[in-house]
Amino acid sequence: MYEVVTQSLRALVDFTDEELFGFMQKLKPLRLKKHSFYLKPGQVCQSMVIIHQGALRYFLRNEKGDQTLGFAFEGEWLGDYESFLLKSPTHCYIEALEDTDIFMLSYTDMQQLYDKSQRFERFGRLIAERLFIETAKSKSKLLTQTAEDRYLELLTNQPQIFERLPLALIASYLGIQPQSLSRIRARVVSGKN
Amino acid sequence: MYEVVTQSLRALVDFTDEELFGFMQKLKPLRLKKHSFYLKPGQVCQSMVIIHQGALRYFLRNEKGDQTLGFAFEGEWLGDYESFLLKSPTHCYIEALEDTDIFMLSYTDMQQLYDKSQRFERFGRLIAERLFIETAKSKSKLLTQTAEDRYLELLTNQPQIFERLPLALIASYLGIQPQSLSRIRARVVSGKN
Repeated sequence: MYEVVTQSLRALVDFTDEELFGFMQKLKPLRLKKHSFYLKPGQVCQSMVIIHQGALRYFLRNEKGDQTLGFAFEGEWLGDYESFLLKSPTHCYIEALEDTDIFMLSYTDMQQLYDKSQRFERFGRLIAERLFIETAKSKSKLLTQTAEDRYLELLTNQPQIFERLPLALIASYLGIQPQSLSRIRARVVSGKN
Repeated sequence: MYEVVTQSLRALVDFTDEELFGFMQKLKPLRLKKHSFYLKPGQVCQSMVIIHQGALRYFLRNEKGDQTLGFAFEGEWLGDYESFLLKSPTHCYIEALEDTDIFMLSYTDMQQLYDKSQRFERFGRLIAERLFIETAKSKSKLLTQTAEDRYLELLTNQPQIFERLPLALIASYLGIQPQSLSRIRARVVSGKN
């Protein structure tokens, strides 16, 4: 029933069935309606979530409009990990893009798992390393890449995003206006640079 | 003799003397002359380093000039953690700002420590979490803060940087020209906003 979740956990660490059962017992299910929020600015991110079914968007809203920081789909973890670790208020929104079923893992439960065995510590380390790599990459893209570079990379690495999400959201993720994304797409299709 | 290093390790995890000895045995010492490089673009970051004495700067160089991403001092870890984890070529420079004594921990040695005990896994998790938080903060500052915000925050959190490093490097870290930093400092001192 929850294969998408158990497979995602086992992809990182070779948990025994017993460990996996202990892990699943800590996860609290929640259903988010389309366009409802899991997290809003000022709240502390109390739990990291893994998606069973659906899609979430993670964004900032300021005078420049929405800046989409990322998306997450089935089997992927999301949360404001900084707010979660430091128990500090978030600046971000996390919104359900579809009706979305998630499982939540609270900070206290996560620490209890870490104390349980070395494999849970390893899981925590690998999650932190992945989130680090993702954040470092996106920071260096902000510093160095053009919008067209970011578009081409997204098209190569996550082509399914273009089938699943509206172009306006993808434009916000690339840090450009929807019209600019249309122009880039037209230019790329026609083979010009 | 190496208190600055052992204290830094013990600040994260309560290692036994035996574990700490095992850790120190993995660390390879290296002396970097002032203005020499520990890492240059195109190289893979083979080891993370901890500073025993001295100071390192971590930066990108492109058509806009040098973009300083961070500094590290005694007892602090540095490296291109993304390049280290993915064994991918770095885009960064790491430069010694003074004659600097470091200890290097290689990827293979780090994995061997992780396999050794849960406390080493915990150490790895906490290091990854810290690096994540640092990167996430600096990314969100890039997206949301003005140069003056970044200056005031640096002055509050790391005042010693202003005593130890030339203003041109601090300006590069704040993403501005040295003249702009002088103007911001004059404005802040005079109490205007």
